Amino acid sequence: MSPDRLPRRIGRRDVAAFARGCAVLGCGGGGGVTLAERLARDAVERSGPVRVVDLDELPPDALVMPCGMLGSPLVFEERLPTGDEPAELAAAVRDVHGRPVDALMPFQLAGANGLIPLAWAAVLGLPLADADGTGRPMPNMATVMGLAGVPPTPAFVVDGAGQSITIRARTRERFVTTAFGVLAGVGGLGAFAFELMEAAVARRAALRGTVSRALAIGRAALGRAGSVESALGGGRVLVRGHVRHLRHHGPEQRTGGSLMIDSADGDRSLRVEFQEEFLLALDGGRVVAATPDTIVLFATETRRPLLIDELREDLLVTAIVADGPAAWRTPEGLALAGPAAFGFDLAGEAPR
Amino acid sequence: MSPDRLPRRIGRRDVAAFARGCAVLGCGGGGGVTLAERLARDAVERSGPVRVVDLDELPPDALVMPCGMLGSPLVFEERLPTGDEPAELAAAVRDVHGRPVDALMPFQLAGANGLIPLAWAAVLGLPLADADGTGRPMPNMATVMGLAGVPPTPAFVVDGAGQSITIRARTRERFVTTAFGVLAGVGGLGAFAFELMEAAVARRAALRGTVSRALAIGRAALGRAGSVESALGGGRVLVRGHVRHLRHHGPEQRTGGSLMIDSADGDRSLRVEFQEEFLLALDGGRVVAATPDTIVLFATETRRPLLIDELREDLLVTAIVADGPAAWRTPEGLALAGPAAFGFDLAGEAPR
Repeated sequence: MSPDRLPRRIGRRDVAAFARGCAVLGCGGGGGVTLAERLARDAVERSGPVRVVDLDELPPDALVMPCGMLGSPLVFEERLPTGDEPAELAAAVRDVHGRPVDALMPFQLAGANGLIPLAWAAVLGLPLADADGTGRPMPNMATVMGLAGVPPTPAFVVDGAGQSITIRARTRERFVTTAFGVLAGVGGLGAFAFELMEAAVARRAALRGTVSRALAIGRAALGRAGSVESALGGGRVLVRGHVRHLRHHGPEQRTGGSLMIDSADGDRSLRVEFQEEFLLALDGGRVVAATPDTIVLFATETRRPLLIDELREDLLVTAIVADGPAAWRTPEGLALAGPAAFGFDLAGEAPR
Repeated sequence: MSPDRLPRRIGRRDVAAFARGCAVLGCGGGGGVTLAERLARDAVERSGPVRVVDLDELPPDALVMPCGMLGSPLVFEERLPTGDEPAELAAAVRDVHGRPVDALMPFQLAGANGLIPLAWAAVLGLPLADADGTGRPMPNMATVMGLAGVPPTPAFVVDGAGQSITIRARTRERFVTTAFGVLAGVGGLGAFAFELMEAAVARRAALRGTVSRALAIGRAALGRAGSVESALGGGRVLVRGHVRHLRHHGPEQRTGGSLMIDSADGDRSLRVEFQEEFLLALDGGRVVAATPDTIVLFATETRRPLLIDELREDLLVTAIVADGPAAWRTPEGLALAGPAAFGFDLAGEAPR
């Protein structure tokens, strides 16, 4: 199914595919989508389908709000959102900008944060821009809008319980430091909106068509249409085989580790390195995939993309890789999203 | 010297007395006043004297901004204020309130935070309200305005380097938690304004006449006019003697401790308990002074009020006590400022 044949609305029956697409783009991290999928489905059922708009369809001065939740996935699951987050964010933005938000956009279309803005758009009765800021999980609120020089502030944090914090910062680095301080202050989980911009700016600064792409990826992953590899755009299977030698480097599962995937015929053995997400794949010591590539491990039997936390010894998996967003493959992008940003020294080896 | 004969302006030559008064009210804590005194003197020299206004002199709807700095005194001394803090705070307030600040007020007239608003008032060319929110050091941003039900937010935090954070919270408790998160986010030191209110509200909610009182206390402490005891209002000497058995309970000097003051004639021995400030004085096991009382230890020779950090074995000191602000001696006030709030169980013993 080509993107132009995708629905221009996400209704109740599309949420599962979109959620699956978000899970694929999570690259093993980004938080599980189960809870966020339920929130999005409930919101769409209650408030009706969400219109997905190309940035070109919006007036040039339309106010686009990249948003999502930040904090520990564990806190997210223990302390459910109250449902007031989108209204609180919208009110804070209106106070500061003196005009209402025109469209929402996932700041990070990967894992749970792909789905949250869909739920919020439904609640607010606003369209979702067919775009996002990362195309994959990224640490420290890094986005391609940041690469393009979009100022991160005024930024907005709410907790859904009446706390509302507005941050203004002169530098991106300071913004991030303050944002994490605020996050601690609101109990480790907050609804964020930052890098608000007009549609004319978003057209050149954001990753475009990515909501449609996630829907197509999800449909393929659910076996409804086409292959995941082609939906990802030039994706390919690296190996099918069993998980072996799963190792977590630190005492916490989230501190990273590695695993081997031994092909069923015993001919090949792929090594995968991960931290919060899958970051590197090596075949006989040669790097065959590296962040910002999209590296996904599917449970071969169920075709479900696996979270790192779900990996188990002997599980039969299919590893797929596709190019990451081009914006992350520039020198400036690689500085944030490349292997070196995660501490991997590839010693001059060109990825693939 | 009676308060009505005090200057209605604080000029260059008054800063030292005001600083000394702030140091006395610091009760051994509140941060040293040396740096803040220099900032205030420089500001007054550069911008001219600061007018001190009674809240009755302000129009009922005048916007009064309680303010000061929060964070570690160590950070304060290592990372000097940039000087842009007052302008940044004023700009943030104007943005949110839609009108300018009319008068500044120390949220805590004790230690360094008595002097900071004086410096800022000079820079902004605004009057200083003859009032404050605590009359003594208090933990967790507790003020008598809070007791009176003044909402703490919208509150404002700036770092003097372009970071500006606005906090809105539904409860005081949440505000404080968020404020400390924000404080961490701006590097452990921030300029704060909270509990902004109109003058008509401040008249019933704030401690009044306290800037004039601090000036009178400082003049007395400098030996310029009257006694410290009478300037404090019914203060009395508890003991003159030598510091003995100075003990810090924890590994850090700031975790509290105790000392004895042995009178020169050997007849009496006063025990003083402290945490961030002097909190209790016991004579033969009987409580003779307890927070929210103002307990001050002066170096007898120099008449200088001592910080807890400055105490040394064998130092000759004079311990003075005076009643704390009446607002802290109500049941609600004692819950925040009384001995039990600092973990002291006086087992039903009535202080004094």
